Amino acid sequence: MSETRYPITMNDVCAAAQRIKGLAQVTPVHMCATIDRLAGRELFFKCEQFQKVGAFKFRGACNAVRRLTDEQAAHGVVTHSSGNHAQALALAAKLRGIAAHVVMPRNATPAKRRAVEEYGAKVHECEPTLAAREEGVAKVQAETRATLIPPYDHPDVIAGQGTVALEFLDQVDHLDAIVAPVGGGGLISGICVVCRESRPIVHVFAAEPLGADDAARSKAGNALLPQGKTNTIADGLLTSLGQLTWPMVRDVVEQVVTVREDEIIQAMRLLWERAKLMVEPSSAVALAAVLTDSFRALKGLGRVGIVLSGGNVNLDKLPWQTVG
Amino acid sequence: MSETRYPITMNDVCAAAQRIKGLAQVTPVHMCATIDRLAGRELFFKCEQFQKVGAFKFRGACNAVRRLTDEQAAHGVVTHSSGNHAQALALAAKLRGIAAHVVMPRNATPAKRRAVEEYGAKVHECEPTLAAREEGVAKVQAETRATLIPPYDHPDVIAGQGTVALEFLDQVDHLDAIVAPVGGGGLISGICVVCRESRPIVHVFAAEPLGADDAARSKAGNALLPQGKTNTIADGLLTSLGQLTWPMVRDVVEQVVTVREDEIIQAMRLLWERAKLMVEPSSAVALAAVLTDSFRALKGLGRVGIVLSGGNVNLDKLPWQTVG
Repeated sequence: MSETRYPITMNDVCAAAQRIKGLAQVTPVHMCATIDRLAGRELFFKCEQFQKVGAFKFRGACNAVRRLTDEQAAHGVVTHSSGNHAQALALAAKLRGIAAHVVMPRNATPAKRRAVEEYGAKVHECEPTLAAREEGVAKVQAETRATLIPPYDHPDVIAGQGTVALEFLDQVDHLDAIVAPVGGGGLISGICVVCRESRPIVHVFAAEPLGADDAARSKAGNALLPQGKTNTIADGLLTSLGQLTWPMVRDVVEQVVTVREDEIIQAMRLLWERAKLMVEPSSAVALAAVLTDSFRALKGLGRVGIVLSGGNVNLDKLPWQTVG
Repeated sequence: MSETRYPITMNDVCAAAQRIKGLAQVTPVHMCATIDRLAGRELFFKCEQFQKVGAFKFRGACNAVRRLTDEQAAHGVVTHSSGNHAQALALAAKLRGIAAHVVMPRNATPAKRRAVEEYGAKVHECEPTLAAREEGVAKVQAETRATLIPPYDHPDVIAGQGTVALEFLDQVDHLDAIVAPVGGGGLISGICVVCRESRPIVHVFAAEPLGADDAARSKAGNALLPQGKTNTIADGLLTSLGQLTWPMVRDVVEQVVTVREDEIIQAMRLLWERAKLMVEPSSAVALAAVLTDSFRALKGLGRVGIVLSGGNVNLDKLPWQTVG
């Protein structure tokens, strides 16, 4: 039986932490007595909504951009995302003084496009299909020789996201578990690497919407199963696990906890109303998981860390508002 | 000419800080590069929305409740407020294990009533007039001998609010100014005491909505002028300065900066969207003041501290939403 080869080790995460030091924020940890009572345990919220660009994604993008040789960097970077990774890559490139190209579907919201452009990236429109996106990237690369930095399935991105866990374990003593949302799996697999190698006593849980539950199904089937049609307001978690992120979910994640839409909305409102923490739906998925009866029934988890992944929300219409 | 007698000194604020230590939160200070660019200077946000009950009011209420003798405390406390002070007093009383009575107009929103009751206070309904409120308090006092803790015009309350400035000056070096919203003046006069006695180099600015501008008019007229009809979404700032808080505004506050409603809403949205800081309109008034052309033109204020007073917002309808 051959040993599984993981894409990165703890050393890569430590190197990433050094690389992004002073560029990324050391985000604060908050607590909320009211939510603790509902959860039946002490919760610690790692607030990545206060990270640059409002999401943990800056860590991975920044690490990947800093890892480029000067020669590579001179040609710029490219990605095809319309979410937080695009903004993160745009800012990371700007801070290194290099070009960033973002291939974005024509139907992306104007707000998302504007956010990326504000950080200085060049937007390339394409049709809203995966094939068109990949074609768009290939075209940019042919013209510019820019390096592709994908949103999660890349060793440098995973190592960067892992720095969340490094900080968290440094900020809070005696955590029994860390719970984080899972979409493509960059964040959760970075956390897994850190916990497995440096603090194996810390259980890692992934939280996922039922409407995009490929990680839960993959875990149950012990095979990487892609996501089909999605149906969730947690728009940061629509993507499937990748070849590099799946092995960590398979081997290290204790359990993938799935939650319903109403549970996500309720958890989001709790965080806003009681903890004054303005997070996006994808972040609320992790708290929603911790508030399920099945999680509440788990023993031995007195101190649980929750990664709030980001705070980029459409403030014109909140999920609990039925208007419009 | 007789020397003005102020209600409290720096010693009272230091004693308050000791008294509420471990009960009140030491709230964090946040920064936001985007808002700095708009303001033309470095801004430091003291985040009292993360204080217990979601507002700085807990500091003053807690100090006042802790100052009671055991004999006084046994009879409980009473106030007539429907805002953050009522919640703050309810929680402060609960933490000391004593009764709290809140006289509240019949037309107060159910959410406000519920919040106070959740902290264990007894609500006494009254007609929505000042006379009825005062009568309600007198009735409670006659029945229970409870001590009245008013929302701002009280030495122990002012001393408690002053602890915001103690912490702020400790957390941020070389502040050139502190800007805070002014309603009844408990917060601003507490800040004035601290700056005047311990760091006179720090300029104190008050920020006020044009629709409730008694402090600006009083300052201009050099006499305490009461507030008439109010018209502002900054519902924490509707009250007039009091006999105890006015002298500090008169003598120590550098300037009362007034702002329009659209400026308040814009500043509030900036804080939510760019800094991910969920604050109530009253808090946004302070940033709005700093973003006015007249404030931006002020020289020598490279590092400005802004007190974000609280985060208790109606999440069903945000000020920038035109619906319903």
